[in-house]
Amino acid sequence: MSKDNASLSRLRQDALSIFKAGVDAVNAEAAVLNACRRIGNHLQIHDQSFDLAAVNHVYVIGAGKASADMAAGLECLLKGRITEGAVTVKYGHTRPLEYIRLIEAGHPVPDHNGLRGAEQILKIADHASEKDLVICLLSGGGSALLPLPADGLTLSDKQKTIQTLLACGAGIDEINAIRKHMSAIKGGRLARRASPATVITLILSDVVGDRLDVIASGPTVPDAGTFSDGMGIIEAYSLQNLIPESVLNHMAAGASGGIEETPKPDTAVFVQTFNFIIGSNLAALEQARKTAEAMGYHTLILSSMIQGETKDAANVHTAIAREIRNSGNPTSPPACLLSGGETTVKISGYGLGGRNQEFALAAAIDIKDEQAMVVLSGGTDGTDGPTDAAGAVVDSETVQKAEQAGISPYTHLKNNDSYNFFKQTGELLMTGPTGTNVMDLRVILVGRVG
Amino acid sequence: MSKDNASLSRLRQDALSIFKAGVDAVNAEAAVLNACRRIGNHLQIHDQSFDLAAVNHVYVIGAGKASADMAAGLECLLKGRITEGAVTVKYGHTRPLEYIRLIEAGHPVPDHNGLRGAEQILKIADHASEKDLVICLLSGGGSALLPLPADGLTLSDKQKTIQTLLACGAGIDEINAIRKHMSAIKGGRLARRASPATVITLILSDVVGDRLDVIASGPTVPDAGTFSDGMGIIEAYSLQNLIPESVLNHMAAGASGGIEETPKPDTAVFVQTFNFIIGSNLAALEQARKTAEAMGYHTLILSSMIQGETKDAANVHTAIAREIRNSGNPTSPPACLLSGGETTVKISGYGLGGRNQEFALAAAIDIKDEQAMVVLSGGTDGTDGPTDAAGAVVDSETVQKAEQAGISPYTHLKNNDSYNFFKQTGELLMTGPTGTNVMDLRVILVGRVG
Repeated sequence: MSKDNASLSRLRQDALSIFKAGVDAVNAEAAVLNACRRIGNHLQIHDQSFDLAAVNHVYVIGAGKASADMAAGLECLLKGRITEGAVTVKYGHTRPLEYIRLIEAGHPVPDHNGLRGAEQILKIADHASEKDLVICLLSGGGSALLPLPADGLTLSDKQKTIQTLLACGAGIDEINAIRKHMSAIKGGRLARRASPATVITLILSDVVGDRLDVIASGPTVPDAGTFSDGMGIIEAYSLQNLIPESVLNHMAAGASGGIEETPKPDTAVFVQTFNFIIGSNLAALEQARKTAEAMGYHTLILSSMIQGETKDAANVHTAIAREIRNSGNPTSPPACLLSGGETTVKISGYGLGGRNQEFALAAAIDIKDEQAMVVLSGGTDGTDGPTDAAGAVVDSETVQKAEQAGISPYTHLKNNDSYNFFKQTGELLMTGPTGTNVMDLRVILVGRVG
Repeated sequence: MSKDNASLSRLRQDALSIFKAGVDAVNAEAAVLNACRRIGNHLQIHDQSFDLAAVNHVYVIGAGKASADMAAGLECLLKGRITEGAVTVKYGHTRPLEYIRLIEAGHPVPDHNGLRGAEQILKIADHASEKDLVICLLSGGGSALLPLPADGLTLSDKQKTIQTLLACGAGIDEINAIRKHMSAIKGGRLARRASPATVITLILSDVVGDRLDVIASGPTVPDAGTFSDGMGIIEAYSLQNLIPESVLNHMAAGASGGIEETPKPDTAVFVQTFNFIIGSNLAALEQARKTAEAMGYHTLILSSMIQGETKDAANVHTAIAREIRNSGNPTSPPACLLSGGETTVKISGYGLGGRNQEFALAAAIDIKDEQAMVVLSGGTDGTDGPTDAAGAVVDSETVQKAEQAGISPYTHLKNNDSYNFFKQTGELLMTGPTGTNVMDLRVILVGRVG
């Protein structure tokens, strides 16, 4: 093995270790146990303390792809103190629990089981009284897994409305504003149902920017929007005849005061409501950074909020890596660039892949004339697109070796066929389920040369 | 004026000063005078010294949009030592000179004047003998301004071939390989013509990565490619019947040894040839960084090599700015992020704009919910697309103010109509001609808040 290969293989090992450290730091079960401490009769979360001695019943509710793992962490912490619990998870994302009931339901398309789960969760919330504590566990997918339309609307009404909004080019904030006003749970309505109980929401964020009102559509977070805003959006896009009549009537009735608004900030509903982000993309990046630093790399977290078209995002990342090699800006080798977030892929081909594999393939092409560079991109939940891989790891020799083997990176990229490229080069990142979900992590290493 | 407005207006002022400092640092005339010193009878360039006492004649040749300014700097330095000179510039990019003749020609589409200029330049090169010094001044546009097809080919043959290569999806390196083998000047052939004279090339780089063999197609730089490589590319894309027969015959004759190859590295041609990059995007960024640092900003040069789709590149830049605000990564406020390079715009609308104005408009949307942020993007040559502006400066209140005035940033962005957006908001960056050309600079400021 040449010296160059030896150092590339070392860089690849390091990238994997750094990625793993980041993912492990936001493992859902561990995140609950790290954020929450039980000190005597008190439950300490971040800098808040809750007196369990003053609580009659502890109820656990929630939804999300990683919420079974969060529930396991909570059971471990509170054991026999939990009176009852119901948490909705994606089919197959279960684990054995003692006190908390898991309901499996459809994701990303909500289904009947999701409705049933939401009803059970609301029943617990309704039941909780002033001296009770309701702990709500939210993680990625929580919105689709907690589907309960407002009275008079159906799941299909909601779905048709959202599709219409997407088709007319409405912004994500506009869509969310209407979504919250078609729901019996979102936009703070769950907190209202649990009130006057104390409500603690533990959140594993899978949303860029970690906005509380956006994660799972903010079931325990005040909503600044109104039915009138919703009507304004419908009118602005002239959707009156395009959305279901039931939704139009519902929004109009709400706007004229006939239906109770979502609960607003500074109202009594939220006096005993506490939201805590216990795991996020940034937290994963911070641990990845510490790990890389301990290995001797000069580290930079670029951003936890990277969005936009995957290939172009990859292009900016590799431009920074190449500048590190070229001029020692923004830092000097050996360097570790880290970023997170969730990019998008404009599909133009018929191949198989995911945004992380596509990022890695585009990056491989960008760094083909460089030395001692490695790029890893992976989904923290262990999956990337409709594949069994979490992402891929490439280096500055990936393209050359592939071309020697008769595999074209350009053709595979053009066909959005990154999975089959990396299947052949043996560079898929395979992690299996990770027990967490905080979007994607990217690790870019620029080694010393010469 | 509110405190917030005051600090935004201060940030905008700072961004302009930082941009100006970067541009001034690579002013073509100043760059020549900064890189070259006359010490007694010696001409000192970077760490090389040339003995003018041993030189019979000093000839000046070259081409490029900023090459008249470079010529002015050189005249100032060498005055009466210059025997003769001919430099081709874009129509209108002239200035009064005493010893060096300026030829105005077509850019970006080469024309007959460009051919005539190239012939005059080659005549000077041919004329130079062993005891002469040829100084070649290259800047952006030098390739189009130095068009001289190889014997038997016409300008139109070259242009058709390059269009065919572009249409079939050939890579830029492949196109350059063929371009150099259709030319009488590019790919080191100019250096061969000037040999055995000493050749000093002063380069103002407008190419991402500053590759000497790419800037102006490397007229004084060894070429690693061959006619056989060119034939390989033509065969790989099956272009035999798509390119002009004259070009096919020329490449085939070259591949079978019937036409002299471009001069290769380590050959006698280059023993007395010296290439110096005297101004580059990175040099502009470095000076911008020093200026920002002196103003008290925490500075980071991200990269001088930013390429890719403009909106997505903007998105990554603002994601980093937002992370600075959010978590103090990769640096803390007050922060100045700098980057350079040249992005592309996928045109889908019918508006007026340029990549810098489009970058600024996309960024304005990204930062609309932030505080105390300013984004400036500008072309260092003072022009951006087919407009009279160099770019634009936006801040975190740009979108809000525009919407209050009934101007939609979303509609203007969708129509690639950034110029008319900024014309209305009064946020165009107007510099006039700057006397340089090293691609684009971006200055992003994140002020302190609270």
